[in-house]
Amino acid sequence: MATQPTREDKFSFGLWTVGWQARDPFGDATRPELDPVESVHRLAELGAYGVTFHDDDLIPFGTASGERDRLVARFTDALSETGLVVPMMTTNLFTHPVFKDGGFTSNDRSVRRFALRKVLRNLDLAAELGAETYVFWGGREGSETDSGKDVQAALDRYREGIDMLAGYVKDKGYGIRFAIEPKPNEPRGDILLPTLGHALAFINELEHGDIVGVNPEVGHEQMAGLNYSAGIAQALWAGKLFHLDLNGQRGIKFDQDLVFGHGDLINAFSTVDLIENGAPGGGPGYDGPRHFDYKPLRTEDIGGVWDSAAANMRTYLLLKERAQAFRADPEVQEALATSRVAELSQPTLAVGETYAELVADTSAFEDFDADAAGAQGYGFVRLTQLALEHLLGAR
Amino acid sequence: MATQPTREDKFSFGLWTVGWQARDPFGDATRPELDPVESVHRLAELGAYGVTFHDDDLIPFGTASGERDRLVARFTDALSETGLVVPMMTTNLFTHPVFKDGGFTSNDRSVRRFALRKVLRNLDLAAELGAETYVFWGGREGSETDSGKDVQAALDRYREGIDMLAGYVKDKGYGIRFAIEPKPNEPRGDILLPTLGHALAFINELEHGDIVGVNPEVGHEQMAGLNYSAGIAQALWAGKLFHLDLNGQRGIKFDQDLVFGHGDLINAFSTVDLIENGAPGGGPGYDGPRHFDYKPLRTEDIGGVWDSAAANMRTYLLLKERAQAFRADPEVQEALATSRVAELSQPTLAVGETYAELVADTSAFEDFDADAAGAQGYGFVRLTQLALEHLLGAR
Amino acid sequence: MATQPTREDKFSFGLWTVGWQARDPFGDATRPELDPVESVHRLAELGAYGVTFHDDDLIPFGTASGERDRLVARFTDALSETGLVVPMMTTNLFTHPVFKDGGFTSNDRSVRRFALRKVLRNLDLAAELGAETYVFWGGREGSETDSGKDVQAALDRYREGIDMLAGYVKDKGYGIRFAIEPKPNEPRGDILLPTLGHALAFINELEHGDIVGVNPEVGHEQMAGLNYSAGIAQALWAGKLFHLDLNGQRGIKFDQDLVFGHGDLINAFSTVDLIENGAPGGGPGYDGPRHFDYKPLRTEDIGGVWDSAAANMRTYLLLKERAQAFRADPEVQEALATSRVAELSQPTLAVGETYAELVADTSAFEDFDADAAGAQGYGFVRLTQLALEHLLGAR
Amino acid sequence: MATQPTREDKFSFGLWTVGWQARDPFGDATRPELDPVESVHRLAELGAYGVTFHDDDLIPFGTASGERDRLVARFTDALSETGLVVPMMTTNLFTHPVFKDGGFTSNDRSVRRFALRKVLRNLDLAAELGAETYVFWGGREGSETDSGKDVQAALDRYREGIDMLAGYVKDKGYGIRFAIEPKPNEPRGDILLPTLGHALAFINELEHGDIVGVNPEVGHEQMAGLNYSAGIAQALWAGKLFHLDLNGQRGIKFDQDLVFGHGDLINAFSTVDLIENGAPGGGPGYDGPRHFDYKPLRTEDIGGVWDSAAANMRTYLLLKERAQAFRADPEVQEALATSRVAELSQPTLAVGETYAELVADTSAFEDFDADAAGAQGYGFVRLTQLALEHLLGAR
Repeated sequence: MATQPTREDKFSFGLWTVGWQARDPFGDATRPELDPVESVHRLAELGAYGVTFHDDDLIPFGTASGERDRLVARFTDALSETGLVVPMMTTNLFTHPVFKDGGFTSNDRSVRRFALRKVLRNLDLAAELGAETYVFWGGREGSETDSGKDVQAALDRYREGIDMLAGYVKDKGYGIRFAIEPKPNEPRGDILLPTLGHALAFINELEHGDIVGVNPEVGHEQMAGLNYSAGIAQALWAGKLFHLDLNGQRGIKFDQDLVFGHGDLINAFSTVDLIENGAPGGGPGYDGPRHFDYKPLRTEDIGGVWDSAAANMRTYLLLKERAQAFRADPEVQEALATSRVAELSQPTLAVGETYAELVADTSAFEDFDADAAGAQGYGFVRLTQLALEHLLGAR
Repeated sequence: MATQPTREDKFSFGLWTVGWQARDPFGDATRPELDPVESVHRLAELGAYGVTFHDDDLIPFGTASGERDRLVARFTDALSETGLVVPMMTTNLFTHPVFKDGGFTSNDRSVRRFALRKVLRNLDLAAELGAETYVFWGGREGSETDSGKDVQAALDRYREGIDMLAGYVKDKGYGIRFAIEPKPNEPRGDILLPTLGHALAFINELEHGDIVGVNPEVGHEQMAGLNYSAGIAQALWAGKLFHLDLNGQRGIKFDQDLVFGHGDLINAFSTVDLIENGAPGGGPGYDGPRHFDYKPLRTEDIGGVWDSAAANMRTYLLLKERAQAFRADPEVQEALATSRVAELSQPTLAVGETYAELVADTSAFEDFDADAAGAQGYGFVRLTQLALEHLLGAR
Repeated sequence: MATQPTREDKFSFGLWTVGWQARDPFGDATRPELDPVESVHRLAELGAYGVTFHDDDLIPFGTASGERDRLVARFTDALSETGLVVPMMTTNLFTHPVFKDGGFTSNDRSVRRFALRKVLRNLDLAAELGAETYVFWGGREGSETDSGKDVQAALDRYREGIDMLAGYVKDKGYGIRFAIEPKPNEPRGDILLPTLGHALAFINELEHGDIVGVNPEVGHEQMAGLNYSAGIAQALWAGKLFHLDLNGQRGIKFDQDLVFGHGDLINAFSTVDLIENGAPGGGPGYDGPRHFDYKPLRTEDIGGVWDSAAANMRTYLLLKERAQAFRADPEVQEALATSRVAELSQPTLAVGETYAELVADTSAFEDFDADAAGAQGYGFVRLTQLALEHLLGAR
Repeated sequence: MATQPTREDKFSFGLWTVGWQARDPFGDATRPELDPVESVHRLAELGAYGVTFHDDDLIPFGTASGERDRLVARFTDALSETGLVVPMMTTNLFTHPVFKDGGFTSNDRSVRRFALRKVLRNLDLAAELGAETYVFWGGREGSETDSGKDVQAALDRYREGIDMLAGYVKDKGYGIRFAIEPKPNEPRGDILLPTLGHALAFINELEHGDIVGVNPEVGHEQMAGLNYSAGIAQALWAGKLFHLDLNGQRGIKFDQDLVFGHGDLINAFSTVDLIENGAPGGGPGYDGPRHFDYKPLRTEDIGGVWDSAAANMRTYLLLKERAQAFRADPEVQEALATSRVAELSQPTLAVGETYAELVADTSAFEDFDADAAGAQGYGFVRLTQLALEHLLGAR
């Protein structure tokens, strides 16, 4: 079993994941601060290839310039020593009270200007560190009540901000693409762009939408009761799956950020199957980092932190192995055929067929035996059971 | 109080709403069939201006041509007698077993062809009856399991179908626009285009997306835990709110289709406020039918059916009245100013300001007092309380 | 691998499960009626040991006496031929319109009387067929609105009904125990006794509560976002887990009744582990039927029906095997010790220790190093990962 | 309108509500510490009659004895000056890291002993201050994973703890009753006693259950999708509604703790109606404090804090006024009769009627016209609309 991660697996972690001090809405921190340099070394030892971060994860809010340079320098030294890359970076527009009503969409214009400046500065660092993706999680862009936020105006401001920043990146030739990370709620009562669908729709209204895609997180979509692997399939279909956040969630509740696979395991399997093996009928695939955006449980000490980091990767590799076996199994292929899965890739109209020709085809309607077609079985349960048994390693 | 509906209020109802026989997953019908002609007359008496329907609501599946004509004729007679219009029509692609794996995205290609033909035929009738909107609710487009449906292929087929039909409508000069109605689940475990965001994103991939918008339903968005009035604000912002379905839902559970207002009343208020009064900062508004897609409770007899139809309209008018008073109240205007709601309509950059100029503006960042800005109060609770008291008729 | 079911596994199925004709709120039946006699034979062949049913599953509502006897006779013949037992029976108090406002708690007293009579008649049959458990699922006991149902009065009537029936069973010496099946909603907007907790609390108010327990269903508890295995642990702790319904559910939405394991697989694992291996610290276990209350997907034909029935049992047996290996693994035992799981079975007070002695123990408070205790790691992630890897068959 | 609160209204607030510094899982505090003495004075001015608190709200964790006495003294001085009472007190067993795996049910026995001692000490203060109710919110009693917590053992320890403490209170003659506050999740993934039903069931297993009831919170029950007013009706029915926590929640998501009424307004109305006017058919009522357990939005400054405190009380009084008008309206009374609401209070069996007599009554079954009974209308929609219009102040 190839369950020992290597750099080729492209696993990456946020500094804020292993570095989470486990402060929650009802409790104080249970773990001390973790030096980003130590995180880099430990993640490298565990087999990760990349590390990601918010500006404030490395450089605390309000740090003076000289100290900022020192912090960056010792971090890049650690990268050099370990060979770890920084595939993605992002901005913290949510911790400081100034952002309590949002960053790009705060009702206070001066806050919006401050937020844009904070991103601009960090984009320069992202370019310097070679990040290819820059994530925007607008966790504070939203509201708790319906009266205090003009949603259309908020979308205008969100667009203004993203377009300005995307124009900057293009002008500078940074080679960075943006990825918007949706979330339905928490910390705000309702967050703008609550699902990956809303984010994709928003991107279509941008001037510089060509370099903007999405960064869907397992738990965030599942907090809206949505199917994650179906969601990223739509993002792939739109050519917009620029990055993703893997973790675990147990249903519609607060954001749990569990270890990948420790939530909806069946959907984790179909997610890995889609990422690794592509859609059954082909279609665009995903080749970016396998990024874990999880939190080690608050009950864990530092040993548990590293155990949990390793668990994400090991589970991913196990699911990858199971998904490959699933696809290769002749009985599965036969079941897929029975379920007519590939038939859905066949256009409904024949090549060049017009609607007039469709209307003229009496076999399609007038002579079609709807009752017979309605009586056939699709065999989805059998196919699902085969998938489950592969997942369980029982075949 | 102007709570007696008139034609100018543009209230419309589906034949399937008042005509629902109250069959549910665990119970048989509790009400007899309702003649569409009677529904037209009763809705007209109650003050509605329009009636909408699926093909099968008027013409049972499999009806022969002659009988079809007769059914249509007596229905149009009723329209003439009452003056009711048909602002919207739609297709039933979900009741017959043939659609059990979907219409446009069934794995069975012959089913897909049959579905397209069923729509084509009904589009002709829609044009004949003067419908301006044609709704697509893809309730069967989806799956219960992750292995049996190639989501990317399904989106290809969905696009193929909608584009073909839109091309047909354009060619025929029907003047009809399409409106896609999202729903997260039920009857399928996961439905394609689960939220209005996903639908808007899909529309952007269409060839004929210019005549395709969305038809969001209160309960459907709320079944995903999403804020309905925030959602339609995004649809308006995208210029895509072509139609809407008003009803009530009490949280994340099965689709309840309650009377409008009998679910999340506060969000119903903000919905009516947005529809009637527009966004605080302006922005595109909605001028289409106020369409009720609800179900009279299964416990009601025919008297309760008509009581419930009237209740939808009366509640809407009450909320409209309250929303107007809310907007007109000087104390509300003062509270809106305190909350800086209008300031969000002001661009973040000055007119013509470049990012270079923003970077050069030290007041925006270097000299910005983030702590002071973070300490200010936005007054959202007071504003929300004012809205609540207007809603309660207590001011 | 022992994944071929035998009678010793005590698997049972409802006639309404394999016999479900796949009518749903938006669609007509996709499968023909299934003769209960055929179901008995097929379930026996597949390895089940028992079959369960509502009165109306075997004897359609309103059947005359003579025909009733004939239907029962041919069913009992099938039981004799196959050796299948009837471990559980129940009443249909939800399909006929008469029950639209409930059975035991309808606002209409005559309906309540009718409901009690319907149960009484079927209890006689249950005794005749040797059923040991009689289930009460009050799916219609509830309401959609807060004004139309006096919940306290409804609980009075529920208690009156259950107590009268329990008294009857005792008087007759039937040896039957009752099991109440909770559900939060669907078909009613809110159902009385929405969770197993509410049902346990209700039972405590009964005169004959000694023969009344609960029948929790996987999907029903998960529809309220609750942890099923934690729930049945509380039922076991209260000595009230008289029966259970195994199936699958994918989150908070309509009642899916998927194949067992096709929903939250990790919780299915912990459920089987608890049923088969008991709580880590001992405590009352479950020895009753492993009853599947699922629905074959609407897309399946009759072949899919039997495939799905078999899938329930096979998945259960696979999970049982994995759970046994999990418990036997020395590394798991070591991890359990690290997590101090067994320490929770040790009383907090020493044997005979009084509160005065606790107060006098300065090591418990005055000298206790809370910071040190707060810094320790519980190792729950590692333990969970070990469970996951056993589940995946990867150890 | 009597919307100015007075002491007779029995409104109380937790120190932790107005004193919340607005630290959330993604953000730092936005408000400074609030002196409990100031809170007492301001709440008194606003019209509250009581103030409640966790030990640590008044006396920070780890405070030395002398300082503890000083803090208590100046607090009691403030009580004397204002006339405010302390109707309820509770323990903080969740903030300090030592409780990260629970208080009474931590896997670590020494933590459990420490937790009991912390409660014991605070019970003495509660008695001294005249508190009549002592609340137990076990927010840390639970787990994120199924393998690390023996739920049955946890329930044993919970019982052991509560019984020991209840015995202490009885022995001391403190006149305090306990109230358990359920919550489904957050901060733990799954919390023990997740709903008021589970808590009621637990209480029945106690030795000293006679002085233990529940303290249900609006938002906590709604986080499980449950109907709050139906829930407290069951608690009243069981004689166990010892206290309650009023606030607002907008659906199944993280715990919002909004102002009362700013969530599900219709259910807030039925809650106030039940508390103030009792069940339609009589039954036990509630006479305790109207306690608000809410959090001022994080966007508010100190002015918004007091505005929000006042909003809770004003909304309550408005709903009380509307509920009284609803009950007094002759049209409502007529509608209640049509819906047969009072008929549910009539026993199903006649006085002294035996089951044998019921069986002998052919009008109940053999001659009962089920179809006719199934065709009647219950008029619930009309009744609900009348309630809505009273709520809106439109009648």
